Amino acid sequence: MSWEAFAERAAALDAADSLSHLRSLFDIPEDVLYFDGNSLGPMTIRSREVLDHTINVEWRERLIRSWNEDWLAMPLRIGNKIAPIIGAASGTVVSCDNTSINLHKALMAAVALRPGRTEIVIDVNNFPTDVYIAQSVANQYGLKLVAVTAEEIASAICERTAVVTATHVDYRSAHILDAASITRAAHQHGALMVWDLAHTTGAVPFNASELDIDFAVGCGYKYLNGGPGAPAFIYVAPRLLETASQPLQGWFGHALPFEFELAYRPAEGIARFLTGTANVLSMKSLEAALEVFDSVAMADIRVKNQSLTGFFIEIFDEFLADQGFSLRSPRDAENRGSHVALGYTDGKALLETLATQGILADFRPPDLLRVVFSALYNTHRDALELAKRLSPIDLL
Amino acid sequence: MSWEAFAERAAALDAADSLSHLRSLFDIPEDVLYFDGNSLGPMTIRSREVLDHTINVEWRERLIRSWNEDWLAMPLRIGNKIAPIIGAASGTVVSCDNTSINLHKALMAAVALRPGRTEIVIDVNNFPTDVYIAQSVANQYGLKLVAVTAEEIASAICERTAVVTATHVDYRSAHILDAASITRAAHQHGALMVWDLAHTTGAVPFNASELDIDFAVGCGYKYLNGGPGAPAFIYVAPRLLETASQPLQGWFGHALPFEFELAYRPAEGIARFLTGTANVLSMKSLEAALEVFDSVAMADIRVKNQSLTGFFIEIFDEFLADQGFSLRSPRDAENRGSHVALGYTDGKALLETLATQGILADFRPPDLLRVVFSALYNTHRDALELAKRLSPIDLL
Repeated sequence: MSWEAFAERAAALDAADSLSHLRSLFDIPEDVLYFDGNSLGPMTIRSREVLDHTINVEWRERLIRSWNEDWLAMPLRIGNKIAPIIGAASGTVVSCDNTSINLHKALMAAVALRPGRTEIVIDVNNFPTDVYIAQSVANQYGLKLVAVTAEEIASAICERTAVVTATHVDYRSAHILDAASITRAAHQHGALMVWDLAHTTGAVPFNASELDIDFAVGCGYKYLNGGPGAPAFIYVAPRLLETASQPLQGWFGHALPFEFELAYRPAEGIARFLTGTANVLSMKSLEAALEVFDSVAMADIRVKNQSLTGFFIEIFDEFLADQGFSLRSPRDAENRGSHVALGYTDGKALLETLATQGILADFRPPDLLRVVFSALYNTHRDALELAKRLSPIDLL
Repeated sequence: MSWEAFAERAAALDAADSLSHLRSLFDIPEDVLYFDGNSLGPMTIRSREVLDHTINVEWRERLIRSWNEDWLAMPLRIGNKIAPIIGAASGTVVSCDNTSINLHKALMAAVALRPGRTEIVIDVNNFPTDVYIAQSVANQYGLKLVAVTAEEIASAICERTAVVTATHVDYRSAHILDAASITRAAHQHGALMVWDLAHTTGAVPFNASELDIDFAVGCGYKYLNGGPGAPAFIYVAPRLLETASQPLQGWFGHALPFEFELAYRPAEGIARFLTGTANVLSMKSLEAALEVFDSVAMADIRVKNQSLTGFFIEIFDEFLADQGFSLRSPRDAENRGSHVALGYTDGKALLETLATQGILADFRPPDLLRVVFSALYNTHRDALELAKRLSPIDLL
């Protein structure tokens, strides 16, 4: 197929796109083509408006009164806005800290619920920080960390396994793990399941309730567009909410934080997974950005990002496959998240060249380009433009 | 002395105040009298300017590029701006997470450096969350928490003590502990000393280097005016920087965070006390607010806040002592931090009444008013105004 034919298809697909109006909720510079939404989502217009109000009214004018007027309720309120995005019930998600801290909490809480068990099983191809965290928790509790590939997870789980942890969508390949079968395997052996939803939340539907997972963590600054360093979130299954405890306890997780009791009494429900003071500015920005999800179903987001990544792969096959690029993401759309990974020997230099042209994608060493498509603001035409710039014919 | 005489003295003291120009760096509403700077510092004009740039240029325009252009260097850069405020050397402080998380890190790191020791000694009148955290760390490591009054700390320390932790300035009374003698007592028995500088940093001089303390944590949103939920900081003594490790490890504390190595290798120096992604907006706001400290010595801040609290206590003696108020802060200015605590039976209702008049102070149950003076923006006239409003004659 010719570039012209792809251009016609892009135009037709974009014209038929039922989510195309969402782009107007973002303020993306005109001279930027953005394919890095899983590193840092772009700014929504609402985030800027809400931040302006938070800074100039809530902080400047209301000062300390804002804690009672608004901020104390934020972590749970935002958790309840994230909950439907990951198929969780109200009251099971809270927004706080960063993903690393929340994964520490989830793993420590899970280990404490399985005393006597001696192993943590982890997907070795997980985001490395998840491996660092699992290793640290294993060291603290005198457990063995069993690091295996995703395919080996099910057979690695046994009666010794306290916790299994994996990332639902691979940060490199975008490969989607079979959450149902892995969770089932963990539960069959009495182990608990902790999912990292960093590259899932806001891009790939997930159903925490139906899958009956135990814990999950996820990120606020990727597909949720909460802004740089937006707080992360933690999910705890309703059946564990009253028994689970997490050792990173602090006053915001106390039953009565402002009574200043000397003894720690965990709050009812998910609030006990809070620790200290929330970072208000970043959290308000996240809350504002979540409004984009009010009017859109995750199923529609999924249809569109499959179309975007699939269209890009089609162009890849036609124009890029014989130019030194290799496809590192699944061809099967069902198993592919919202980005396309391409191998390219001199990927880093290529990305830097593109950046000078306002085309922002991502590089992960040693040779991986990640091209991220967000259904909320990317178009098929974006995919075509990028492919053209990647094609050496155009680069010359 | 009459109200008129106090008014004349206030005017004279304010006229002679060498720090009075600093008030113009803040944007405090005209109809507000603010005495709650140790709960939430007011907004500096620089914070608003920098946040505007962070939101509209760094996030909106530069997007992911801002991490390399600026944000990755933030935690250490801001740590180096906080360092002189607590008498610490460059490279020993890093800004990150909240105070609770940092206290977890400090205590866990300290305990790990004293294997075989079985006790943590804590000031029982500490901020309660510090007690929760110490209790949690003690539980995790199978240690005993020895909670004693400040006066009993020195005699409670023994060969079994792994760590001693206390808050330098009491959050209720503003009483300043003798950091030198407590630190010395800890070290004499081979224990490590962790100071909470929440109500010290930016208000009371501290000399981490000279005192030879081991760890400290402190807060960004109180006297440093970083904004709601601004990140906290952690200090580690230079002699411990290469041996201390903290179990809340994550990619930002890795030697090469963007090489995505599978094994955790802690960064050189204080960076290993980082965990996950920094909350950029709040951190930039803190960095901007710290500019206020560029042109002022902590010694001068101290002279002024002693004058403000002392002046307020003088008025208290004259007009409030016989009206149901009692002084709960030290009379000796040397032992008093930057706020004055007053007992008052119906303190909560009184504070709420004052708030409707734009006078913002703080209440801590059951009956404690905290009147906070920041040398950066409060005046002796503020102290007089507040005393007048507290006096029933004026309230009628």
